[in-house]
Amino acid sequence: MYLMEFSITPMDQGQSVSAFVARCVELVDRSGLDYRLHAMGTVVEGDLEPLLRLLKQSFEALQSDSERISCSVKFDYRHAKKGRLTSKVDSVEAKVGHSLKK
Amino acid sequence: MYLMEFSITPMDQGQSVSAFVARCVELVDRSGLDYRLHAMGTVVEGDLEPLLRLLKQSFEALQSDSERISCSVKFDYRHAKKGRLTSKVDSVEAKVGHSLKK
Amino acid sequence: MYLMEFSITPMDQGQSVSAFVARCVELVDRSGLDYRLHAMGTVVEGDLEPLLRLLKQSFEALQSDSERISCSVKFDYRHAKKGRLTSKVDSVEAKVGHSLKK
Amino acid sequence: MYLMEFSITPMDQGQSVSAFVARCVELVDRSGLDYRLHAMGTVVEGDLEPLLRLLKQSFEALQSDSERISCSVKFDYRHAKKGRLTSKVDSVEAKVGHSLKK
Repeated sequence: MYLMEFSITPMDQGQSVSAFVARCVELVDRSGLDYRLHAMGTVVEGDLEPLLRLLKQSFEALQSDSERISCSVKFDYRHAKKGRLTSKVDSVEAKVGHSLKK
Repeated sequence: MYLMEFSITPMDQGQSVSAFVARCVELVDRSGLDYRLHAMGTVVEGDLEPLLRLLKQSFEALQSDSERISCSVKFDYRHAKKGRLTSKVDSVEAKVGHSLKK
Repeated sequence: MYLMEFSITPMDQGQSVSAFVARCVELVDRSGLDYRLHAMGTVVEGDLEPLLRLLKQSFEALQSDSERISCSVKFDYRHAKKGRLTSKVDSVEAKVGHSLKK
Repeated sequence: MYLMEFSITPMDQGQSVSAFVARCVELVDRSGLDYRLHAMGTVVEGDLEPLLRLLKQSFEALQSDSERISCSVKFDYRHAKKGRLTSKVDSVEAKVGHSLKK
């Protein structure tokens, strides 16, 4: 199972880009995959194929308005492990020994 | 004000690295800076100097055990804007028009 | 046209990972796409579909040996621009006004 | 010794940003540290302190014009290893067994 964190930004639309981010997060929300939105990106859990499809759809959702788009992605693959959107955070919290800001 | 998202991982300690991540998150938690931990990293808000200091302390916290360490960082600087750990997420949610997983 | 920079690393194979990196760079080299290898990753130019296919093939090339794999990717899409593996560097060099290390 | 790869981009200056990138690469070139410029960023080798200083100077070099700046950074620390701007690429090439595009 994969975790994919991504953020995608048009470079030619000025400094306020949340309307464009919203289009892509909406795609994630509708995908049926589990995810978490945070201040610097979105983390999605799933198999590789649907995750790559989300990247493709996100580019398509911005290309009608934008001629230059930047996107950064991180994948964390771990064999046969699911539910890591919460378990990775829980595991760090357990090691620290007290609650953390999430 | 800056948002800094980072994740740091020893490359020579096998696939379970949460104990090492915990050391660095503990540094963030003690720094007094506002932050959020998520499944793929930690987002911290602050001025640049204390954020760079956290990077340095994180490397030092792992170098006693590890000979190879990988770290990825993203900065988002926005002039005179504070409180963006929550406001960026709120802004996307407002544009989508319904609540999202956070 | 897209530039995609990526690096992919097994987390459970110790600190020397060039044999695993080589498998993925070999895939890039055989793809027919133009690319450049550097010390922190590989930059490939192409359409989105073949680039995403390279990511998928790279994971497959490591999953026989590794149970945990980390991968970071950056995309730079620019409408109707080709040949940017060299033109982006040339453009920076022209602005600096003297030759740079490449 | 550390390798640091970074790219820094103003978000509010339109899609052609090479003049801004040039300011930061000029800082790297003058730093005396060894580096390589490529199409998606710059890789610099050095101790951590001078590398973090370059990040700080790069932000300062853009903040006179830009109110929003995005920066992505990757660090690769390896104990007691120097010269990796070329040795990492050479090592991959040796494993592949034929010359690669660099």
